[in-house]
Amino acid sequence: MDPTNYTPTHYLWSFADGIGTVTFNRPERKNPLTFESYAELREMFRALVYVKSVKAIIITGAGGNFCSGGDVHEIIGPLVGMEMPELLDFTRMTGDLVKAMRDCPQPIIAAIDGVCVGAGAIMAMASDLRIATPEAKCAFLFNRVGLAGCDMGACAMLPRIIGQGRASELLYLGRSMSAEEGERWGFYNRIIAADALMAAALDWATRIAAGPNFGNAMTKNQLNTEWDMSLHTAIEAEAQAQAICMQTKDFERAYTAFVAKQKPVFEGN
Amino acid sequence: MDPTNYTPTHYLWSFADGIGTVTFNRPERKNPLTFESYAELREMFRALVYVKSVKAIIITGAGGNFCSGGDVHEIIGPLVGMEMPELLDFTRMTGDLVKAMRDCPQPIIAAIDGVCVGAGAIMAMASDLRIATPEAKCAFLFNRVGLAGCDMGACAMLPRIIGQGRASELLYLGRSMSAEEGERWGFYNRIIAADALMAAALDWATRIAAGPNFGNAMTKNQLNTEWDMSLHTAIEAEAQAQAICMQTKDFERAYTAFVAKQKPVFEGN
Amino acid sequence: MDPTNYTPTHYLWSFADGIGTVTFNRPERKNPLTFESYAELREMFRALVYVKSVKAIIITGAGGNFCSGGDVHEIIGPLVGMEMPELLDFTRMTGDLVKAMRDCPQPIIAAIDGVCVGAGAIMAMASDLRIATPEAKCAFLFNRVGLAGCDMGACAMLPRIIGQGRASELLYLGRSMSAEEGERWGFYNRIIAADALMAAALDWATRIAAGPNFGNAMTKNQLNTEWDMSLHTAIEAEAQAQAICMQTKDFERAYTAFVAKQKPVFEGN
Repeated sequence: MDPTNYTPTHYLWSFADGIGTVTFNRPERKNPLTFESYAELREMFRALVYVKSVKAIIITGAGGNFCSGGDVHEIIGPLVGMEMPELLDFTRMTGDLVKAMRDCPQPIIAAIDGVCVGAGAIMAMASDLRIATPEAKCAFLFNRVGLAGCDMGACAMLPRIIGQGRASELLYLGRSMSAEEGERWGFYNRIIAADALMAAALDWATRIAAGPNFGNAMTKNQLNTEWDMSLHTAIEAEAQAQAICMQTKDFERAYTAFVAKQKPVFEGN
Repeated sequence: MDPTNYTPTHYLWSFADGIGTVTFNRPERKNPLTFESYAELREMFRALVYVKSVKAIIITGAGGNFCSGGDVHEIIGPLVGMEMPELLDFTRMTGDLVKAMRDCPQPIIAAIDGVCVGAGAIMAMASDLRIATPEAKCAFLFNRVGLAGCDMGACAMLPRIIGQGRASELLYLGRSMSAEEGERWGFYNRIIAADALMAAALDWATRIAAGPNFGNAMTKNQLNTEWDMSLHTAIEAEAQAQAICMQTKDFERAYTAFVAKQKPVFEGN
Repeated sequence: MDPTNYTPTHYLWSFADGIGTVTFNRPERKNPLTFESYAELREMFRALVYVKSVKAIIITGAGGNFCSGGDVHEIIGPLVGMEMPELLDFTRMTGDLVKAMRDCPQPIIAAIDGVCVGAGAIMAMASDLRIATPEAKCAFLFNRVGLAGCDMGACAMLPRIIGQGRASELLYLGRSMSAEEGERWGFYNRIIAADALMAAALDWATRIAAGPNFGNAMTKNQLNTEWDMSLHTAIEAEAQAQAICMQTKDFERAYTAFVAKQKPVFEGN
């Protein structure tokens, strides 16, 4: 598959100016996920590793909601009847989607309005940046369907974003986090009115796509990999990673532009 | 010992409706801990691992204070005269209490009024959720008694709850954290007037005890174990943990109830 | 070198009452760093490990700014022309400065006014406590010079201070963090007017220098080393560390003073 020229079956995809946009698009059901959409998203994020012309990603939902998570009838019903090997196939597939979102070099911006629950909340959490409207309602509601809060990396990632105490509350109570709480706790980077949401996401994506993309990708890699390193190991890892970035032409472009009192034009190499 | 029918010597314990409540009860001294109360608490939290009928725990203090920590006369005095093997016996015993609080499957809610200092602050920190009154005064005051801030896991747990910078301030200065700061920093989940404190704690405990308890216990396990895993390892760990939860009857109960437009009744299996 | 009687070449140093103060002092350029100043700072922080009479450190900048980071002409220009071995020498040197700041036993207080960017932001981040003025402008602007955000430990340390989402925003956008944001997010411990900044930093340094210094150094060591330990391992590490501190005379001094209803005078042993 080629993400620069691609028509997925289970969601909308657009690509322009270095920015790819995923839109969940079953608005009549508040954009649920299905077995097929999980798999198709996983494949696309995996393909993005090799596509340098895609420089930033936006994820959003159609019709005033972000995503209602795994569909009760299309996912939960079948899961109830499965044996362990099939169940593990499923939980690994959803986990693989999160791994693919974290492993692709493009920073991902979630643009969130309305319902953002279950696996939808996870996809917001697994993004790099989150912009939401005042109407955003985000719930990690796994325990309300009889499950544990440890879904797709939530017990590892959510505490690192909002702190262990707040993450515990959301995961044990399954309650909705308001937009105000989400901003105050560090889950949302910005709150913005619904009619300005996509423009705000596009503004950030445009700034990120303007590069230096090689450096941005290294930032994402290190943000993923350093959280279980010792402090000394992390500092050495960054010494190596940044030395690599210092051999890019974008570093030289920035210096040349600065000396010429111009704004650098990055090319991602 | 049987936590469902149990009369401890060094604190109060009550059990009803799946909820066990620990009340520190030496109000004339603001509820200090002693060698004996540490050990008795440790034994009870260890026993709770095997008692499925206890589904949530509340920890609180009598007489308008939570806990004043290790008693100066009954603990600090004797410690001053000890040799290293005895000292290590003591610090391991207090550490074992925290390990037992984190290892028991029941989520723990600390209900905090007034003084919450030293080992009392640690027991609040080692709980899963914290509700406090506006009068709560929490201090990790170990350096004020000549010691280090690294007591019973504080240097590992406190930064994950309130961030490294704020944790550093509390541990280096030994100063009191106000209720307002505690809520804003993510230490307290809620602030509520003293006369409504126990009702609020009981409300959360009741919601948590209503289940799904198997899932809640898995959430707690993963919140404990994932913070030093790599991102990929954590996601695989959750794929396995959640697949296990998908084989519980509570998962099926939730689905059946949803289809029937009813509220699920969880049974913890 | 002897930090108690020391005149560095590339910054100001003063020592009095147990407190050492680093002042970046090229105010006409907003206090940039150079190859030489990095190396000289690294050597001093390494020497501080062995100098018990220095008990707390303040880092600040002259002329209304903290530090403008690596100088464009004196650092970035030469780097652009270097081969990998030299680049790695440089990134390891800057990383070694952060390691030395974290490894010295003295708590470090950054007193920040005005510009605090690039390696300057890193030095603030690598300090233990941060006090800033309302005019402080802190930016991890590495991607604006064509590089990655992973510089000198930023991808490991910044998320632990302000959370993964906010750290991602600062590192991907390279934007300035305001003083208000910095306090709200847990980066700054206090905001205070410029004319009271040094007094506030000195007040905290004085309180910290009053000890117990052996305990404070152990706190810093554990804050550094525990973040990639498992929960159980961290609790055992603290049991050992605190048992060691219980054999200091400062612990006994605190107890004796308490019994005598006096304020303890710590001596750091």
